[in-house]
Amino acid sequence: MSFQITHKDKDTKARTGTLITDHGVIETPVFMPVGTAGSVKAIHQKELKDDVNARIILGNTYHLYLRPGLEIIEKAGGLHKFIGWDRPILTDSGGYQVYSLADRRKMTENGVVFQSHIDGSKHVFTPETVMDIERTIGADFMMAFDECTPFPCDYKYAKKSMLMTHKWLERCIDRFKTTPDKYGYQQKLIPIVQGSVYRDLRQQSAEFIAKQNMEGNAIGGLSVGEPTDVMYEMTELVCSILPADKPRYLMGVGTPANILEGIALGIDMFDCVMPTRNARNGMLFTKNGIMNMRNEKWKNDLSPIDEEGSSFVDSHYSKAYLRHLFVAKEILGPMIATQHNLAFYVWLVTEARKHIAAGTYGEWKNKMVKQVTKRL
Amino acid sequence: MSFQITHKDKDTKARTGTLITDHGVIETPVFMPVGTAGSVKAIHQKELKDDVNARIILGNTYHLYLRPGLEIIEKAGGLHKFIGWDRPILTDSGGYQVYSLADRRKMTENGVVFQSHIDGSKHVFTPETVMDIERTIGADFMMAFDECTPFPCDYKYAKKSMLMTHKWLERCIDRFKTTPDKYGYQQKLIPIVQGSVYRDLRQQSAEFIAKQNMEGNAIGGLSVGEPTDVMYEMTELVCSILPADKPRYLMGVGTPANILEGIALGIDMFDCVMPTRNARNGMLFTKNGIMNMRNEKWKNDLSPIDEEGSSFVDSHYSKAYLRHLFVAKEILGPMIATQHNLAFYVWLVTEARKHIAAGTYGEWKNKMVKQVTKRL
Repeated sequence: MSFQITHKDKDTKARTGTLITDHGVIETPVFMPVGTAGSVKAIHQKELKDDVNARIILGNTYHLYLRPGLEIIEKAGGLHKFIGWDRPILTDSGGYQVYSLADRRKMTENGVVFQSHIDGSKHVFTPETVMDIERTIGADFMMAFDECTPFPCDYKYAKKSMLMTHKWLERCIDRFKTTPDKYGYQQKLIPIVQGSVYRDLRQQSAEFIAKQNMEGNAIGGLSVGEPTDVMYEMTELVCSILPADKPRYLMGVGTPANILEGIALGIDMFDCVMPTRNARNGMLFTKNGIMNMRNEKWKNDLSPIDEEGSSFVDSHYSKAYLRHLFVAKEILGPMIATQHNLAFYVWLVTEARKHIAAGTYGEWKNKMVKQVTKRL
Repeated sequence: MSFQITHKDKDTKARTGTLITDHGVIETPVFMPVGTAGSVKAIHQKELKDDVNARIILGNTYHLYLRPGLEIIEKAGGLHKFIGWDRPILTDSGGYQVYSLADRRKMTENGVVFQSHIDGSKHVFTPETVMDIERTIGADFMMAFDECTPFPCDYKYAKKSMLMTHKWLERCIDRFKTTPDKYGYQQKLIPIVQGSVYRDLRQQSAEFIAKQNMEGNAIGGLSVGEPTDVMYEMTELVCSILPADKPRYLMGVGTPANILEGIALGIDMFDCVMPTRNARNGMLFTKNGIMNMRNEKWKNDLSPIDEEGSSFVDSHYSKAYLRHLFVAKEILGPMIATQHNLAFYVWLVTEARKHIAAGTYGEWKNKMVKQVTKRL
């Protein structure tokens, strides 16, 4: 596994890179569709690869651990083989899900005891068990086990939580370094910067993470409800500290505009449920703005979903037909919208790469941020 | 449009044929996936064509008339263009749906006044309006407006209903013959034999229908709850009367075994929601029997869904993964199952055609009927 910066933008901190994994090359900046439980919802892996051209997808440790469970994933030879996806996979550590369980979990310095949301059964996640689980899932990129603080979060809690995340990271690294790659291809551990919205904590955390010298670094605990400018401020601060020669991953972000701004701040990797989740509710992201396909406005619009879209669905189906499918609650509606949105997100980062390489990113980004946030 | 018988089986009444339409050639016997409201649920038109290789699909007049409505379908240039499907379409007349409305409809000799199940609005279907609607939808095959009697149905009602269906047919034919093809390609009217489970009524109805000399004929009012042997008995009787040189369509049938038996009785066309509806509940039809994918049995079975299946999903995904998708309620589960089941139904009639041509249909059919009805 290696990462090479290929271009740097002249006006912003944006850069392009090539991230080489044993499951193929990832050009960065990259958007990673979310496949929580082993499926990016409402799309075939084949379409995700051949039509959307997603280069890497996410899985979620908490969900996959509970269902289908590690036994069958291991028996299959890892998640790639279990789901039929031969490109890279990144697994979220499950920290976010475990903390979301609220009264169904108990946290100690050792780890977290929690009850399954499915059947109430008891389980323990520690930095060590999570590393073992992510090894067994077979992730190319394994996220460290952290606590993702909510927003708002008082300073005292944010600090205490950050320090615990750092201690857990040391245990993650220990376990990671003393266990082999599970299935013959390289697996990499990615540590996560926390610190909520506090500059000094973010700085402290970024410095701690940078010092670990892992092959990539992530920023967590943002896009959890804080104002957008605070998210950008924290991202900018952390990017100024994280090593420039390693990929930077801004977790759970975001809207098309968030992604474009994140790239300008030096982020290389993004993931978000927005293109898939919003698709299922009829929301389409396009280069010209956002469309709510349930809107009466599209009822008689027989023009293609997106004349310039890169997916086959964009030219094959009309806006009026897609609206009809949503109104009639046909499953094909979410299927088409999902495929369109993912193809759009992939197109967006692909264009970003072109503009970074051409030295026109800043100007293009400013124009696009206005366009993509319009309501059509 | 033309129909040519190409082979006749030596042991049964099975035959193969070529049905030529302006939207392409249909080899018979054929299975027609049901696309009620302009979408065969949970599958892209592209997959339906390229992977499943469905030669013709169904639309439903009642559903399409209410939603999206005729205005937009006409503006699009017909249903083919509206939904992005360039092969033939057959439209059910909506009679079955209207009668299912029970207390929301009032029937007279003139036609039916009914309330929309969507918004309660009042509408009138007569033989004339239904012909106009099917013309506007742009069906290659337009089903006559009939009454589909329920099971059980007393003799008196069945007879009265059948006579009304016959009168309505004459009005359908009048309207059909005095209106032009709507979009420049040929549209054909298919009359429907009724008569419930009464031999004398079925005979009388089949003779009446045969006499109209239309380019294809259908058998309705079966597969509505009557015993299977009664369905076969009625089908056999009606097939003996309907002209042998015209395609025969057994409406709403059925299981793989029903289709194989129907072919042996001389049926050329079938439609049924079973492969798609049951798919969404996790039921897979295969040449070796029926699988309930929610069953614990498949939990650790990493073998392909169907080793010999003709769809890409059959070899790309495992039984254990498909089971996981159903248990986790992932949309991809119904998508995979739908694609598999439709591909299996299309495979089944394709194999039937080969065996009819080879003169081995009877023997093969008897073997297959046993196989496909097994519970795996």
